[in-house]
Amino acid sequence: MKRIESEQNASIKQWKKLYTRKERDKSGQFIIEGPHLIEEAINHNVQIAHLIVEESYRLPAEWEHMRLDPWIVTKKIMGMLSDTEHPQGVLAICRMSSNELQIKAGGKYLFVDGVQDPGNLGTIIRTADASGLDGVVLGEGTVDVYNSKVLRSTQGSLFHLPVVKGKLEEWMDECKQMEVPVYVSALKGAQSLHDVNSSGSFALVVGNEGSGVRTEIMVSADQLVYIPMFGNAESLNVAVAAGIMLYELQKNGQ
Amino acid sequence: MKRIESEQNASIKQWKKLYTRKERDKSGQFIIEGPHLIEEAINHNVQIAHLIVEESYRLPAEWEHMRLDPWIVTKKIMGMLSDTEHPQGVLAICRMSSNELQIKAGGKYLFVDGVQDPGNLGTIIRTADASGLDGVVLGEGTVDVYNSKVLRSTQGSLFHLPVVKGKLEEWMDECKQMEVPVYVSALKGAQSLHDVNSSGSFALVVGNEGSGVRTEIMVSADQLVYIPMFGNAESLNVAVAAGIMLYELQKNGQ
Repeated sequence: MKRIESEQNASIKQWKKLYTRKERDKSGQFIIEGPHLIEEAINHNVQIAHLIVEESYRLPAEWEHMRLDPWIVTKKIMGMLSDTEHPQGVLAICRMSSNELQIKAGGKYLFVDGVQDPGNLGTIIRTADASGLDGVVLGEGTVDVYNSKVLRSTQGSLFHLPVVKGKLEEWMDECKQMEVPVYVSALKGAQSLHDVNSSGSFALVVGNEGSGVRTEIMVSADQLVYIPMFGNAESLNVAVAAGIMLYELQKNGQ
Repeated sequence: MKRIESEQNASIKQWKKLYTRKERDKSGQFIIEGPHLIEEAINHNVQIAHLIVEESYRLPAEWEHMRLDPWIVTKKIMGMLSDTEHPQGVLAICRMSSNELQIKAGGKYLFVDGVQDPGNLGTIIRTADASGLDGVVLGEGTVDVYNSKVLRSTQGSLFHLPVVKGKLEEWMDECKQMEVPVYVSALKGAQSLHDVNSSGSFALVVGNEGSGVRTEIMVSADQLVYIPMFGNAESLNVAVAAGIMLYELQKNGQ
């Protein structure tokens, strides 16, 4: 059994740095918290570099055969390592995997242009998973997917489908080549979502919370689409809008 | 011009207490921040008891004729009064209005059973507004709608439609009397949302983030409905689920 009792321990300091994007990019590692998220990671072949457990925490029985060889830490150290108000007693340091995505004819994709709120991005990835997409591309200006709040909001969906970073313009070119129509979420000059005849294959682009999808992306769309507003709200939350659009485009193809 | 320079000022202390539900309920007042939310409040006849402005902040020109007679405060005091990391320079203390709701034949309603995350509740109210509902009922166990994070997430939609607190069982009885069908969001034993034949009049019930809608409510539903899951996600975020369901039920009736 491996124990860490000193708050000055070098590993503790190193792991805490994983809450910064810089350190995550440098080390190729990220930190996740709680039994649910860790189980999702394990079940989807994410490599666990270290499992860190508070001394009073009992690991789930199903994990015993996995020889995870956890580090046992004090409650105080767990509090230092967790970024939540109520630490769940178990953390894992994971290795990023080389996530690959290829646009295929007939596929379903979501492209994210500059979404900045971690909760929104996590919820979007969870929704992309639920609606059965083949992959998600995160464009420039989008919050880091390994941010702890993003990871938490995905509820593990990040491990269920390919999520890659890239230039959306290039991915839209790929879609054109594979004849996957690109729909871009817009408020003006667009067709109502309910009038779109989706074949069930699509790439949907959603944009920044305040400014929406960038004009450079809009002009390359096959179709701009909007969700009709019936009340006095000016817009919908981006994760809600993504959900409504994905389910509608998805359903049309069935 | 009214100025407050002392951080010990009794009004400052009183206003800060409005971040607690107890004080809001006692005083019948709540606090909102930022020009957008305050403008929505003003435009929808919410009574502004006090407007509080940081000395360097310029009020929007459109507000000048309104004789809002603001309190001018220092940056430090604004920082004390705001609950955001980057205060927007203007706050308002508002009076709660006696929001009334009546179930009518042909109406559209959302009932919320125990949603606890402020961001989720605010987003749900914003979505209810966008989808043109006639009102929202917040059941027991639901986070206070005057919580500052809820208010922020509504983006002002709270002021656009009646949002009331109450016992959902009683409101469901009202629906039965007015022949408004009650759909309850569920994961099991339910009909797929895409197979529901909505007339366009409905009350939709959504539930707690972890445990869903309570059984007592489920048993009184006219129809349990679920959103089909195509990928590996176990469920959707409650605000996303509410959005998908509301737009589908709404659309069917058009």
